[in-house]
Amino acid sequence: MTATTEGELLPQPAAAEIELVKVLHALGDPVRLQLFQVYAAGGEYDCSSERLGVMHLHKSTVSHHMKVMREAGITSTRAAGRVRYVQLRRADLDARFPGLVAALLAARE
Amino acid sequence: MTATTEGELLPQPAAAEIELVKVLHALGDPVRLQLFQVYAAGGEYDCSSERLGVMHLHKSTVSHHMKVMREAGITSTRAAGRVRYVQLRRADLDARFPGLVAALLAARE
Repeated sequence: MTATTEGELLPQPAAAEIELVKVLHALGDPVRLQLFQVYAAGGEYDCSSERLGVMHLHKSTVSHHMKVMREAGITSTRAAGRVRYVQLRRADLDARFPGLVAALLAARE
Repeated sequence: MTATTEGELLPQPAAAEIELVKVLHALGDPVRLQLFQVYAAGGEYDCSSERLGVMHLHKSTVSHHMKVMREAGITSTRAAGRVRYVQLRRADLDARFPGLVAALLAARE
């Protein structure tokens, strides 16, 4: 997690353009569902964060999963130098799909 | 829709075995998300029902989608002769993932 806000946001859909089917597709994968749960705790995560629980995966695999989530509108990614900081678009998701994030987090056993 | 209860249920996961990631994967497809929305109105649907809104798809494609949903635990399928009747496992889904079906239905624009 970091308190800085430097860097540029990578391309992402506007809140109003987030599509349910793409969100579900993105979360219909064990690794991405796990990342979603971690991100939901709040804050920013870089791809090498141990807190993500994906240290067993190749960095390019993690990057791919992060891209799918960003393009679906689930996360935003801030690029600062060579590091990418990812966070959940909780407010956008809650506005677009009321109750969905809460239900997903409650459901995740 | 039919009021009969003849025929046999095709194999499906027990309610306690329904996995969130499989449900999300199954619904992360435009056709299956549409079927889900139709099924959510209640009752049983055979695969040729015009109410499903999938008349433009080949019957084998529709059958495939129905199988994915059944195996994910979203629907149950009753086989009566050569006809398959599908319905949403609303009670099982609500018990397993409280609020999820409601949020998905509310979200579907």
